[in-house]
Amino acid sequence: MSNPEHARVNQAAVAPEKVMNKLVSLAKRRGFIFPSSEIYGGLSSCFDYGPLGSEMKKNIKDLWWTSMTRLHENIVGIDASIMMNPTVWEASGHVASFNDPLIDEKTTKRRYRADHLIENHIEKLRREGRDEQAGSVQAAYEQASEAGNLNKALYQIIIDEGIKAPDTGASDWTDVRQFNLMFQCNMGALAEASGSVYLRPETAQGIFVNFHQVRESSRMKVPFGIAQIGKAFRNEIVKGNFIFRMVEFEQMEMQYFVKPGTQLEAFEEWRKERYTWYTESLGISPDKLHWYKHDKLAHYADLAYDIKFEFPFGTEEIEGIHSRTDFDLKQHQEFSGKNMEYIDQSTHERYIPYVVETSAGCDRLFLALLSDAYTEDTVDGEERVMLKLAPKVAPVKAAVLPLMKKGGMAEAAMELRNRLARSFPVQYDDAGSIGKRYRRQDEIGTPYSITIDHQSLEDGTATVRFRDTARQERMAIDSIQGFIASKLV
Amino acid sequence: MSNPEHARVNQAAVAPEKVMNKLVSLAKRRGFIFPSSEIYGGLSSCFDYGPLGSEMKKNIKDLWWTSMTRLHENIVGIDASIMMNPTVWEASGHVASFNDPLIDEKTTKRRYRADHLIENHIEKLRREGRDEQAGSVQAAYEQASEAGNLNKALYQIIIDEGIKAPDTGASDWTDVRQFNLMFQCNMGALAEASGSVYLRPETAQGIFVNFHQVRESSRMKVPFGIAQIGKAFRNEIVKGNFIFRMVEFEQMEMQYFVKPGTQLEAFEEWRKERYTWYTESLGISPDKLHWYKHDKLAHYADLAYDIKFEFPFGTEEIEGIHSRTDFDLKQHQEFSGKNMEYIDQSTHERYIPYVVETSAGCDRLFLALLSDAYTEDTVDGEERVMLKLAPKVAPVKAAVLPLMKKGGMAEAAMELRNRLARSFPVQYDDAGSIGKRYRRQDEIGTPYSITIDHQSLEDGTATVRFRDTARQERMAIDSIQGFIASKLV
Repeated sequence: MSNPEHARVNQAAVAPEKVMNKLVSLAKRRGFIFPSSEIYGGLSSCFDYGPLGSEMKKNIKDLWWTSMTRLHENIVGIDASIMMNPTVWEASGHVASFNDPLIDEKTTKRRYRADHLIENHIEKLRREGRDEQAGSVQAAYEQASEAGNLNKALYQIIIDEGIKAPDTGASDWTDVRQFNLMFQCNMGALAEASGSVYLRPETAQGIFVNFHQVRESSRMKVPFGIAQIGKAFRNEIVKGNFIFRMVEFEQMEMQYFVKPGTQLEAFEEWRKERYTWYTESLGISPDKLHWYKHDKLAHYADLAYDIKFEFPFGTEEIEGIHSRTDFDLKQHQEFSGKNMEYIDQSTHERYIPYVVETSAGCDRLFLALLSDAYTEDTVDGEERVMLKLAPKVAPVKAAVLPLMKKGGMAEAAMELRNRLARSFPVQYDDAGSIGKRYRRQDEIGTPYSITIDHQSLEDGTATVRFRDTARQERMAIDSIQGFIASKLV
Repeated sequence: MSNPEHARVNQAAVAPEKVMNKLVSLAKRRGFIFPSSEIYGGLSSCFDYGPLGSEMKKNIKDLWWTSMTRLHENIVGIDASIMMNPTVWEASGHVASFNDPLIDEKTTKRRYRADHLIENHIEKLRREGRDEQAGSVQAAYEQASEAGNLNKALYQIIIDEGIKAPDTGASDWTDVRQFNLMFQCNMGALAEASGSVYLRPETAQGIFVNFHQVRESSRMKVPFGIAQIGKAFRNEIVKGNFIFRMVEFEQMEMQYFVKPGTQLEAFEEWRKERYTWYTESLGISPDKLHWYKHDKLAHYADLAYDIKFEFPFGTEEIEGIHSRTDFDLKQHQEFSGKNMEYIDQSTHERYIPYVVETSAGCDRLFLALLSDAYTEDTVDGEERVMLKLAPKVAPVKAAVLPLMKKGGMAEAAMELRNRLARSFPVQYDDAGSIGKRYRRQDEIGTPYSITIDHQSLEDGTATVRFRDTARQERMAIDSIQGFIASKLV
């Protein structure tokens, strides 16, 4: 967004708590995001991308794919299946420990995460200035995680503290139980004889199990990376926040395989590159991006940072960059019995590579881009809503508008639309006043609106209006395709 | 493939039954397709797309998406979730009747489709010249479909005819039972209280339930279309044939909504357009494409054609073009209680639109392209394997090869690779003789190989070798990007 044409002008501050409601409403009305199966009352935390949403999501995925595969000589992509051999998830640790501690409230029959109940309770105590009590609950909570019987310890805290359900105030609790977050289904048409398969809870394992196949077929030498975009599924109790957290979601992950001992150097390079991608390729405001370093590392990690974005509902992760050591490949070596070592042909060293992972959530990035772009300002004394999306991200690159339908303007505009559409997504609109049509395009983030008027038919020029400044410039019609294309690289 | 550069030269006829084995082996060795989770022994009929496969599949999807959405002013895309409200599948008829009749053989514990056993038996009788018996079994089989108890009727034919399992010869059969082909899993972490959801068995319903949301948000008027690419899942007993039929697969579907009475006209237009897409955009050999008209129509259809392709294992469907009437929208109106009518604003007519559907299988199209492209010929007295893929479909558009590593050629070649990679996928290769490197590119279908030699460093030219003819031409290095880009539109 360093282009001066897209400098922010006259933006009114929109109260963050109102932004989400406005975004959800705009997203539905203009065809970015619909609740899934809405005519049937929807389905918990599932959403569909509409005409503009599917284009914009495709843009995000294409930009990621190009930047992570094509532009790196030593990174290749794969597209693994969602269903995998179930032993994969034993090796990865998901069968044993990808659990949430859940508790039911008996009178309301509602279900909660026991750890969230306690964390919220501690926060509440702190807000009320009851720091001593907060501290002792915190200590009990930390001890619980290390105790032999976590479920019982969590339950005891909830009872001792008299914690109530945050939404209903009820508190007739069941025991705490651990529930695995992987969706499970039966493969093979006869249920009794068939095997259970899981829907993958992350795309990463599809990369690890294919390590040797990819390396050999692509003639890759360490260090090299494998990138993948794909759906993953987690059977979670989801707290809302629109598409931020969904049971069905899309990941964009890259695993970079390095020689043990060189992982921290690679980590620093990826930290820089990934941050730059958000600010320079996608045009996200740097002041809304924050680094978060994990103090408590997962058992497989030796360093972990998240890139967080200031959403209207809070600052939350959009990408994790994790140094995963050789944990995953070692596990697969143990569970599959296959040697996962790499042999360096020049030094004859053998080792299991270390892995630096960059893992981004496509849907939450979509939401970050929408909320970063949402702008209310005043143009010519009139209020407008605008999505200040980078041209590369915007679902529609240009609108072609005949000033009037008559006099050949509609035909000339449609002809231009069809010509431009061979290169990028374009809309044609002849309905309503020209001002109304500009606003319609501002609201969906279209960076350029081209108006075909009387003069266009005489001298082959048209006005190009720039979304952010509402400034207009007359250009030769034949130069417009090249002008817009130059803004998309 | 009308480009004379890509005229077929000197192609040896490869026996069809050998082509599949060669393709599967090449696909694995060069990184097109791997068996899923292979280090764990794989998972029934699941495959992963490797580095070249994922690029090529993306090309197919992007070409379809552009041709079906951007180039049509009245078609928009969506990307609906895989999990939907379960009532969707009651309305669509999948819960009640998306079943296969299955039978188990007790001694071998193997499972078969009862209808396939009978159909194969009838074919076998015909091959053996026992036409009279074939005819009477056929008659019994057709009666069975209309009988009150299909399962019992199928079982009786299998017993009466003494049909044996085709692979083992065993015949101690269980009863025939109907099994639903939708994968089912529990949503919500407590199994006992949670609801069942299905993995969608087709993407079409995601379009139908969003009919009004898409129409309103995109300001579309009938006739208009909604396009979608996405995964679907069918819990079938799959007979192999590589990626032709998988339990997890990707569809590319478009539903075109028209005024009742105009559907046959729209149908004819789509028949033409879809055929042309295969031959002209993808370069599939027209002599391997065949139209198949359905005699027996599904209960919702009033006309149905398939485009079939001559695979090495037989001529099979790659796309269905079906006139689906108003069946789906009517069902959703009935089950959701929401009015699914369209109101024509100019005539004030109200009606439920009819639907013409074009439904293509992305994975089987991938396989069709691979098998159509597979070529063995002789160049300069040497045998080679080549994938004669259209440049738009090929996973790698160009290879940049330094004639030697020394003398600055490697650096110049890498510099050119990096420059071209900003526009399309390119490989750099400096390993082995130049002839070997050309063969390596021929085998993965790279249409252009650019060699940087001594002269390149002096006069800024390089040789461009054309895959199909092995002919070489010297070009200015600065013109190569534009030359290749012009072959990709």
